[in-house]
Amino acid sequence: MSAQPQTPKDPLYPDPHPTVSPQAKADLIKALEQALQADTVLHEEEDLRPYECDGLSAYRRLPLAVIIPHDLDQARQALAICRERGIPITARGAGTGLSGGALPFPNGVLMSLARFNEIIDLDPVKRLARVQPGVRNLAISEAAAPHGLYYAPDPSSQIACSIGGNVAENSGGVHCLKYGLTVHNVVAVKMLTIEGDLVTLGSEALDSPGYDLLALIHGSEGMLGIIVEVTVRLLPRPERAQVLMAAFDNPQVAGEAVAALIGQGIIPGGLEMMDNDAIRAAEDFVHAGYPVDAAAILLCELDGTDAEVSEQVHEVRELLLGAGATEVRTATDEAERMRFWAGRKAAFPAVGRISPDYYCMDGTIPRRQLGKVLGGIADLSKAYGLRVANVFHAGDGNLHPLILFDANQPGELEKAEELGGQILELCVEVGGTITGEHGVGIEKINQMCVQFQPAELTQFHAVKAAFDPQGLLNPGKAVPTLHRCAEFGAMHVHRGQLPFPDLPRF
Amino acid sequence: MSAQPQTPKDPLYPDPHPTVSPQAKADLIKALEQALQADTVLHEEEDLRPYECDGLSAYRRLPLAVIIPHDLDQARQALAICRERGIPITARGAGTGLSGGALPFPNGVLMSLARFNEIIDLDPVKRLARVQPGVRNLAISEAAAPHGLYYAPDPSSQIACSIGGNVAENSGGVHCLKYGLTVHNVVAVKMLTIEGDLVTLGSEALDSPGYDLLALIHGSEGMLGIIVEVTVRLLPRPERAQVLMAAFDNPQVAGEAVAALIGQGIIPGGLEMMDNDAIRAAEDFVHAGYPVDAAAILLCELDGTDAEVSEQVHEVRELLLGAGATEVRTATDEAERMRFWAGRKAAFPAVGRISPDYYCMDGTIPRRQLGKVLGGIADLSKAYGLRVANVFHAGDGNLHPLILFDANQPGELEKAEELGGQILELCVEVGGTITGEHGVGIEKINQMCVQFQPAELTQFHAVKAAFDPQGLLNPGKAVPTLHRCAEFGAMHVHRGQLPFPDLPRF
Repeated sequence: MSAQPQTPKDPLYPDPHPTVSPQAKADLIKALEQALQADTVLHEEEDLRPYECDGLSAYRRLPLAVIIPHDLDQARQALAICRERGIPITARGAGTGLSGGALPFPNGVLMSLARFNEIIDLDPVKRLARVQPGVRNLAISEAAAPHGLYYAPDPSSQIACSIGGNVAENSGGVHCLKYGLTVHNVVAVKMLTIEGDLVTLGSEALDSPGYDLLALIHGSEGMLGIIVEVTVRLLPRPERAQVLMAAFDNPQVAGEAVAALIGQGIIPGGLEMMDNDAIRAAEDFVHAGYPVDAAAILLCELDGTDAEVSEQVHEVRELLLGAGATEVRTATDEAERMRFWAGRKAAFPAVGRISPDYYCMDGTIPRRQLGKVLGGIADLSKAYGLRVANVFHAGDGNLHPLILFDANQPGELEKAEELGGQILELCVEVGGTITGEHGVGIEKINQMCVQFQPAELTQFHAVKAAFDPQGLLNPGKAVPTLHRCAEFGAMHVHRGQLPFPDLPRF
Repeated sequence: MSAQPQTPKDPLYPDPHPTVSPQAKADLIKALEQALQADTVLHEEEDLRPYECDGLSAYRRLPLAVIIPHDLDQARQALAICRERGIPITARGAGTGLSGGALPFPNGVLMSLARFNEIIDLDPVKRLARVQPGVRNLAISEAAAPHGLYYAPDPSSQIACSIGGNVAENSGGVHCLKYGLTVHNVVAVKMLTIEGDLVTLGSEALDSPGYDLLALIHGSEGMLGIIVEVTVRLLPRPERAQVLMAAFDNPQVAGEAVAALIGQGIIPGGLEMMDNDAIRAAEDFVHAGYPVDAAAILLCELDGTDAEVSEQVHEVRELLLGAGATEVRTATDEAERMRFWAGRKAAFPAVGRISPDYYCMDGTIPRRQLGKVLGGIADLSKAYGLRVANVFHAGDGNLHPLILFDANQPGELEKAEELGGQILELCVEVGGTITGEHGVGIEKINQMCVQFQPAELTQFHAVKAAFDPQGLLNPGKAVPTLHRCAEFGAMHVHRGQLPFPDLPRF
């Protein structure tokens, strides 16, 4: 979504938190300032402003205060002060999340983990790095590089996003088709419970006895505890990586080529797709060498040992040509390989250059439905009169349609959101889900009612209560109340109604 | 553990379940028989006898009744009848578990999922199989074979064990180093909650919104719900598999060779180790062609494309010779490859031929500690005067020491258990865990007090209560009460005391 300020609408309807009186707010801040260092507590409006939103910048709220603890003890004390007063707490990593998971509550406190930014230990023999949650994703790979190792999950925001946030949202990236999501690359997490207890989830061993709370914490969006340490698995850099770029004169044919490729048992390191709008925008921006007349391109990275890559490059090339590619180019050197990727990685900002605003969607579908869903998106785009540029993690069926609009034109934001909702409905219809790697946050909380039945939502709430009986940790995010779902019952996908009816926004 | 009947001791101390009066038992059975078909309810002693234990056969208990539902509706009705009466329910798959997860309660009901044995759908394009929980592990691979696909996790019991039990125990196998445990190969589970609601955990997509209850259910040992459907991922059979057998004149050197191999970035399809006792027993039994004078052998299977395997065979051979192997043999044909594996797969029954009884341990350690732990086990073996044959999933640090003893010699079972406890303590001491792939059940419930802190155990109990507030689903298994841990406080590993003090057994 564009950084253009929007009319603030209430993303948290009904607001689940009691209003904090000015007196209670003053008491809270005094208690926090007495317990913690002065530079740990922010409460002036100009200091709070940078924390008013995360990457879902259409929604902005100021919290009562922002806490930036220096250490575990301060974090624990801040939790205790909030807990005693029944004040909700939202944890924040780098604030790059795209679904509003770190949007503050006006009657709550935001806790930034930015000062937990130390790489505690990096063991090249065990191939593990133990880091604090504020360490940036890319910083781990940089620290591991001298040992020939790296951390595999690579969200587009990897320069900025932090590993704690990656765990909270279970982030993916270009390479997750082959190397898995965050949950597949983390072996242990330490977190503070709302009671202030430090618990260790997982271990350095392959399996751990007891319930798999480590997996549970992944994607839990700050609702079960405050993550204070993460141990990640490091992988050896593949001996060789090679990229093929294939052009198609029909995006549906490209979609079917993806299914055929995976159907042959080839798991590329990355398998990305861009349609003509995305190709033109990227080419114009970074001159990647893309064929600007192609209806779609696939970028297929193969990595592994030298022998393995040579064999697969040949095989994939034949397969793509057989599946209808009009042209297949293999990067002739490392510089060209990097250029091919530069276009893909710059696709979002590139689209930002050709439209005043864009809305980045995130859904997942079974791979074999790629062709059908691409056709459906094209139809919706025509029906709504809004262009949609498509950039996909095609290999794992994770779609990122970018809806182009102009927020200064009255009604265009609403139309874009409506179109976005229709696209997510289409994902569920073909057996997919409403999120791939961006989380639910507040952005997709209504679609959760489409995805899940009441028995499942009830179970989610019971799990939340098992960690946080008072409901103080980022309440109201990710899992809708049954009341909300009842109110939005008209949303049910099979009835063909709009996902964003004209009711109070959330 | 041998099938030799032992004096029944109470594995569930204190028994958490109220005693059911004869009248209440008669009422329960009447209600079950009225609601279900006659062949669905067993309650005569001779009918109950086959269900008195699972693979941990030293402990045997008869339940009040055994229910073998034909369908979901019967399972739901049986749950309701038990729930209304506060009667605990233990689910049972094929009963091959090794830690007592399916041991019945004398005041509870056992529910066998044996009749849920249908492969509902097998889709070679999606590469997914949707099966009922009673389907045998190997039956899935057999059904997938015509499509060139298979289900990767392969516990030694794969001929007999069922996929529902695999999920409940998060089973592993020879190939889990490369292909992961059960949790990494299952995409969705349907289960009945104790309330009788059918919930779907996970989906066919790569990621699912909401808390990761799918992972949570893996290894939960029937304590969170009754699994009624499992959707597993199928993998293409590798183009080629090749096995190398390396001999060593010192098991510690073999252990260090494993660390060196993985340290080079090679992830074999399987990497198994056997020591001299295991080698001799296996060779004598199946004539695998093992060098009977070797102190240890490693079996290293490489799989993948033809080019990849050829390259790796060469590399691994050089590496093992460099790491001190006295001999490295590559299977010359498929028949020899199968023979090499036959010895490993028959190692447990082979050891059963050379000792009246054996006790199979299951612990996991960081790979780099293999050499040290092997030395420690040898010292303990001498101190206790009991032979220990070692068979390891060496690649992932999962140990299966087999303690040889004679249950007919008074005190030998106790000595074997004591030695087993010491080995598990050693695993925790070097940074490992008390289980690899066999679960906790009742076997290792006391060691859970060593592995976890009270805050973590408290969180486990809260999660259990979120699914099962009355505590009716297999209560008392896997997660010890804090009371139990307090009572066994003397067990703490750093104090060097025995893990099985002479107190009431559990």
